[in-house]
Amino acid sequence: MNKKWMATGVLGTLLMTGIAGYTYESAQPVEAKQKTKQAKVKNVIFMIPDGYSAAYATNYRWYQGGKETELDGHLKGMMRTYSANTKVTDSAAAGTAMATGTKTNNGTIGMDPSGKEVASILDRADQAGKATGLVSTSAITHATPAVFASHVATRANEADIAKQYMDEMKVDVLLGGGQKFFFDQKNGGVQEAGNLVKKAERAGYQYADSLESLNETDGRKVLGLFAEEGMAPELDRENTNQPSLATMTSKALQTLKKDRDGFFLMVEGSQIDWAGHAHDAAWAMKDAEAFHQAVEKVLRFAAKDKHTLVVVAGDHDTGGMSVGGYDEYVAKPEVLKNVKATGDEMVRQFNEDLSNIASVVKRETTFDLTAEEIQTLQKVDAKKRVMTLNEMISKRAYVGWTTAVHTGVDVPLYAYGPQSEQFSGLHENTDIPGLMANAMKLKK
Amino acid sequence: MNKKWMATGVLGTLLMTGIAGYTYESAQPVEAKQKTKQAKVKNVIFMIPDGYSAAYATNYRWYQGGKETELDGHLKGMMRTYSANTKVTDSAAAGTAMATGTKTNNGTIGMDPSGKEVASILDRADQAGKATGLVSTSAITHATPAVFASHVATRANEADIAKQYMDEMKVDVLLGGGQKFFFDQKNGGVQEAGNLVKKAERAGYQYADSLESLNETDGRKVLGLFAEEGMAPELDRENTNQPSLATMTSKALQTLKKDRDGFFLMVEGSQIDWAGHAHDAAWAMKDAEAFHQAVEKVLRFAAKDKHTLVVVAGDHDTGGMSVGGYDEYVAKPEVLKNVKATGDEMVRQFNEDLSNIASVVKRETTFDLTAEEIQTLQKVDAKKRVMTLNEMISKRAYVGWTTAVHTGVDVPLYAYGPQSEQFSGLHENTDIPGLMANAMKLKK
Repeated sequence: MNKKWMATGVLGTLLMTGIAGYTYESAQPVEAKQKTKQAKVKNVIFMIPDGYSAAYATNYRWYQGGKETELDGHLKGMMRTYSANTKVTDSAAAGTAMATGTKTNNGTIGMDPSGKEVASILDRADQAGKATGLVSTSAITHATPAVFASHVATRANEADIAKQYMDEMKVDVLLGGGQKFFFDQKNGGVQEAGNLVKKAERAGYQYADSLESLNETDGRKVLGLFAEEGMAPELDRENTNQPSLATMTSKALQTLKKDRDGFFLMVEGSQIDWAGHAHDAAWAMKDAEAFHQAVEKVLRFAAKDKHTLVVVAGDHDTGGMSVGGYDEYVAKPEVLKNVKATGDEMVRQFNEDLSNIASVVKRETTFDLTAEEIQTLQKVDAKKRVMTLNEMISKRAYVGWTTAVHTGVDVPLYAYGPQSEQFSGLHENTDIPGLMANAMKLKK
Repeated sequence: MNKKWMATGVLGTLLMTGIAGYTYESAQPVEAKQKTKQAKVKNVIFMIPDGYSAAYATNYRWYQGGKETELDGHLKGMMRTYSANTKVTDSAAAGTAMATGTKTNNGTIGMDPSGKEVASILDRADQAGKATGLVSTSAITHATPAVFASHVATRANEADIAKQYMDEMKVDVLLGGGQKFFFDQKNGGVQEAGNLVKKAERAGYQYADSLESLNETDGRKVLGLFAEEGMAPELDRENTNQPSLATMTSKALQTLKKDRDGFFLMVEGSQIDWAGHAHDAAWAMKDAEAFHQAVEKVLRFAAKDKHTLVVVAGDHDTGGMSVGGYDEYVAKPEVLKNVKATGDEMVRQFNEDLSNIASVVKRETTFDLTAEEIQTLQKVDAKKRVMTLNEMISKRAYVGWTTAVHTGVDVPLYAYGPQSEQFSGLHENTDIPGLMANAMKLKK
């Protein structure tokens, strides 16, 4: 064999296959070369469907007809969710883990169990000169968004959280509910709370309180507060002038992408969890749908941008939801498509005249309650009426529940874009911010 | 730059980094080269923890102290489990999907919904000249093993399944329970069933019916039947002379590896599912432990062998198990380590004298039942006594349940060895045999 000819053959092939830069000047093993071949990550978008476990993912897929969802194709692995003090986390401890890499006790936001403040991935992105944003359908001061940009010993201090946001001004886009924590002096002991929005405007934020005013924003900093506390459930949003999660997400992307250093954005589908607490399967599915519509916007942005890493994971399961239940080999989450109101809303409609139960439920769900069910709803303690109704509807969809709080099951972990393979396999929730920081090459 | 020197530098590096064979004679893109660089798959071991969903995996991890289990490090993705006629599969349809790649109706074994027989991955491995084996802790004629080597319209025909095994003789190693289906003429209408074991021996099988006689086998074909129907639950195995799942698995490996063409082996932890049906959380955890001990044997074999692909997936969830429940942020599966008998066994012990309930339960579980619980157990319909006791124990471990049958949630999918990356992401249960066949390069 002619050695010179062979060498030329090798080189020619190398040139053809696109590793022409492989000279003595950059001689590295091919494996390393291939790893670094991935596009650089400039932006990270972290999407959290609060309370979303594999049971929600499976039920939601059937709710939508059974084909793979926007997320299914990006499943990378699963994530452990336990907190520092219990195997069943709350959203404060889970969020702190996923934002800061530190396990803490249930109830604690942005601090370790000893009370020491810990920096979040949003803090680190901000320090690196990136734009930052938080979007949620809860109050923007609720546990999950709060962990990314505040530090309080108890999650109940939402007015303190609002004050911290507006003292530090490091989050460029804040969209969600929670007007009362920015305006109302009576709540939570904030001094001059009424000034928080004015303070934001003086610092260059555009303020929005409706879909229309959100659409009009065009700057680089936006504070949007669309409800007193939590925003309307997606099922009940029609008669409000609140934006959808997808609309808020698009606005956040449009605003944050103006920063040439890139951005970090967290988007939470907050109310999947609330629905799970209430055993309201239809609310859970409809808010999962709203979340997936936001996912679609984000994936479209990332596919075009090519330098955006998208990570999606629930923080824990809520309710111990099952796909099927009730001792039959049946699951029918698709019947929840017929449900047009939350249990809360239906009970509000019939609570003043309990003779309307059957007609309200029929109109809003298409289901006929039995005489026995109607009697049960009439007799039950008023505080338990919503949950009782929700469980009647869950039974028709064969959605099971084991608890009114959270459970500790591992949850699915999805990722898309450059470096997304780093999320393969089983992870601790505390792994997530470090993997994101590495992807963006943030300094320690 | 001296081009000749550069070429030498490239070649030298290529030689050092182990792709020296990359000459004009085998010029392929580097990517393709790297994909095929993986070791050839000669053997496939498919392990099925029946009924094992993410809730079982999470509870089992805590039961063992909280560190990653033998399987955790090999999580690749998740798997959809629905059958042809319902979103909540049984083991017959799930097994048929995972063995043959065809969705069928619940109850059907090795046939499509129209009744047409479909070939299994075991059939295809056998046709390629490989040795084959089935190991389970149920009767070896039970649904999950049966789908790999028989075809019947209803899973209840276990005697027919035994007859098919011994008519075709294609499975070299059969280890599990089910003596009655090989010996007893009264069951299921098999003619001359008493001849099935003799028939096997005439065809060269060594027969074993105890741990001792299994240990003495040294040939290439083994039929081991260690119980009338299902084997003893791991919690109650101590006083029997039955082998553990790990021991049966080791014997299967030792026997099958003699075939130089390689082998296909299916190993089922059958009773995790039975425990789930009975809401017996301690039985589920202990049989999950027995399954993981078999996994350890398999992974050790595969690590040494280097040409073995191992795939592990439950066929569905059983019971709608949750990690936590009962409206508290608590899970305590570790207390199940104190439970030393199944609910079945405890009820057997106290059923003839119900004044012994407290003492039996205390001795076997360390738990003190309340006076109210003891009364409930005394009064309950005898048929429901086991389940009622199991639920009292589940409550102490904060293990929740939503059904006495299966649920339809996606389940975790694990793989190890060459080609294991093919199992990454979300899969249909029907994808599994095709991926295994491709890995072994079996003909269609």
